[in-house]
Amino acid sequence: MNHENWVQQEFRELGKSLGFQFAPLEEIENRLNKVKAGMHHRGIDGLLVVQKMDLYYLSGTTQDGLLFLPSEGNPLLMIKRELERAKVESPIKEVRALKSLRDVPSLIQTYWNRLPHRLGLEFDVLPVNDYLKLQEIFPGIRLVDASPIFRETRKIKSPLEVDLMRVAGKIGKKVYQEARKILKEGMTEIEFGGLLEAVAKKHGHEGLLRVRSLNYEAYAWHVLSGFTGGIVSQSDSPMGGLGLSPAFPVGASLKIMKAHEPILVDFGTCYHGYQADETRMFSIGKLNQKFIDAYKACREIHDTVLEETRPGADCEAIFMKTLQLAEKLGYKDSYLGPPGLQTRFIAHGIGLELNEYPFLARGQSYPLEKGMTFALEPKIVFPGEGSVGIENTVAVTENGYEVLTSASTNIFHV
Amino acid sequence: MNHENWVQQEFRELGKSLGFQFAPLEEIENRLNKVKAGMHHRGIDGLLVVQKMDLYYLSGTTQDGLLFLPSEGNPLLMIKRELERAKVESPIKEVRALKSLRDVPSLIQTYWNRLPHRLGLEFDVLPVNDYLKLQEIFPGIRLVDASPIFRETRKIKSPLEVDLMRVAGKIGKKVYQEARKILKEGMTEIEFGGLLEAVAKKHGHEGLLRVRSLNYEAYAWHVLSGFTGGIVSQSDSPMGGLGLSPAFPVGASLKIMKAHEPILVDFGTCYHGYQADETRMFSIGKLNQKFIDAYKACREIHDTVLEETRPGADCEAIFMKTLQLAEKLGYKDSYLGPPGLQTRFIAHGIGLELNEYPFLARGQSYPLEKGMTFALEPKIVFPGEGSVGIENTVAVTENGYEVLTSASTNIFHV
Repeated sequence: MNHENWVQQEFRELGKSLGFQFAPLEEIENRLNKVKAGMHHRGIDGLLVVQKMDLYYLSGTTQDGLLFLPSEGNPLLMIKRELERAKVESPIKEVRALKSLRDVPSLIQTYWNRLPHRLGLEFDVLPVNDYLKLQEIFPGIRLVDASPIFRETRKIKSPLEVDLMRVAGKIGKKVYQEARKILKEGMTEIEFGGLLEAVAKKHGHEGLLRVRSLNYEAYAWHVLSGFTGGIVSQSDSPMGGLGLSPAFPVGASLKIMKAHEPILVDFGTCYHGYQADETRMFSIGKLNQKFIDAYKACREIHDTVLEETRPGADCEAIFMKTLQLAEKLGYKDSYLGPPGLQTRFIAHGIGLELNEYPFLARGQSYPLEKGMTFALEPKIVFPGEGSVGIENTVAVTENGYEVLTSASTNIFHV
Repeated sequence: MNHENWVQQEFRELGKSLGFQFAPLEEIENRLNKVKAGMHHRGIDGLLVVQKMDLYYLSGTTQDGLLFLPSEGNPLLMIKRELERAKVESPIKEVRALKSLRDVPSLIQTYWNRLPHRLGLEFDVLPVNDYLKLQEIFPGIRLVDASPIFRETRKIKSPLEVDLMRVAGKIGKKVYQEARKILKEGMTEIEFGGLLEAVAKKHGHEGLLRVRSLNYEAYAWHVLSGFTGGIVSQSDSPMGGLGLSPAFPVGASLKIMKAHEPILVDFGTCYHGYQADETRMFSIGKLNQKFIDAYKACREIHDTVLEETRPGADCEAIFMKTLQLAEKLGYKDSYLGPPGLQTRFIAHGIGLELNEYPFLARGQSYPLEKGMTFALEPKIVFPGEGSVGIENTVAVTENGYEVLTSASTNIFHV
């Protein structure tokens, strides 16, 4: 059978029968309209979307290609591979085959009868070589940074997006429910992490977590036990763990998990690109009272943030309040990392990427808004000994909040 | 305990006891010297290394930071997080704390007593915003593309690098040995893929595979059964599979694996950053003769390439020879993908990233050299039905080749 015909005839129904949700036209149109408003505001008359998650957000597909969006009118989707599949996955009507980046100007010219004056690009992720090539193939056209438009638009989630994050949260709950049955004394951190991932995948977790960054890599197997929980590493998090080698110096290691150590599991799940992040504590046998007390403090800080969470609350003010509370509770020097290495955020925005707005952090003074989603993660670190923490993914609602991750918050004892 | 002291006193021995291999000074010096030769050749008197895998290659650490390399003299490692750990992980002697990118020029000036005239950067991956910021903080200094230097240097692996890939290959062998015990009729592709990953992780696989690209994402769970093996997707590979959603439209899906279907498993492993890639076939019960014959053809093509593999052999000529052989064997329209969607390579270079040189491909006319490593993957695709293939990771030796992946090449029947 011809692949083209096969996709046209079979792909939609087969995909649906195997769990695919295709983005509705109305949802995509709402997003496009928000981005267009941002373009008007910044005097950008054409936008060329290159990055995969921005493409998915605005087209519903992640096939290899680019989206051109004029500030007035409908978008043009240009696909390198695979064209027929993109036509099924995306509700966008104008879809063309693209052979090379060099053909983009002529495709836009043919479709739109002109070229933009100011072409917006994702300067925060676009590689220099691609930028220089675009300068060459769009002579005389001003290339400008459009990445703030994506940051602004994507920080408010639609009900459909929150729904997908809720499903990701439910996958996480299943992982934690199974985790207690899987954890055994004498197992290594990475063996435990690998088995948790296997559970998540079985339930539809997409495996890769995504961060908008050249070098920062996200992963699900953040299992830290005893002293590895006290190790800081490259990542902007209170503790990075030991990891498996200098090439991957974060997350689970080959360390064997022992009785009475704090075992911190920070596990992210992904469904249709939307992520939920959740941290819970485990122990084999009874945990030292020091760690139980510190975990209690994390929960108190967590609950205090939730009490403040509603539209209008200031992100920096919430963060500063947690600093005061941590100090009052006796954790000034261990809250969010060891002295000198403490992180400056208590929550990061989450959605298609793990570093979206808002940040409940120092220097981030702006109000929470309905539809924002963030991962709230108070953690306490004792170098050489271990760490404790809790994390939930939270959506800001009309009057308050909804927690999208719902595993039990008690310490899982085995 | 203070984190700094803990790292200084405990980290090296603890890391070693848990499998960490720290890069020897001599190895790093050899690499630095090769890169310096490339700088001389291109008239670059200073190199600023930003990207994680290039940093690891030249320093032995992936802590968050940058490396400055003058064309004469020793490199300067500038670390944001975590400084003490970088000092242990890297044999480089000059290591400084870095607060912000803006401090880079003054750190270089202090260390080197001058600034470079032509500063080399990785234009193939560096984001535009970082480039513009570097233009601003290095006024009057010419910023030039140094990415070809990395491509050229990294394409030849040292004995130590090949050793690490050999270990990755051994992890892969263990995965395939366990796979037959894991595979059950009625299991979904993703469940199988997740369990294979759990096995790999238990044996030290680092989980993330790496590609040098803005949008291309590598993953290990490429399990395709029956019709999903016939689906082409975004990736530049003969078949992408269905995947789990339009956000992750490649690899294993929620499709249940049935008896008598071809089940293709393309599983990559990673050890200390170095990767091995390996594809094998499975079936539950007897496989249709059509697929057995096609798999035989893949093996014949694979073996023919190995016969040609030695220093001096032309990469494009080898590729063209496989096209002729595939046609002779009756697979002209199914070799490397369906008509119109066939890929143009039979092997990709592999090491720290999955798209290194050499490519045994159309348009890639250059000789193989000793120390090159590539993943050789002849595949045959039948849309609507399934696909077959074999893949091994191969090192070019003095007189021929060494296969670094050594799972049995028979079809695994369960």
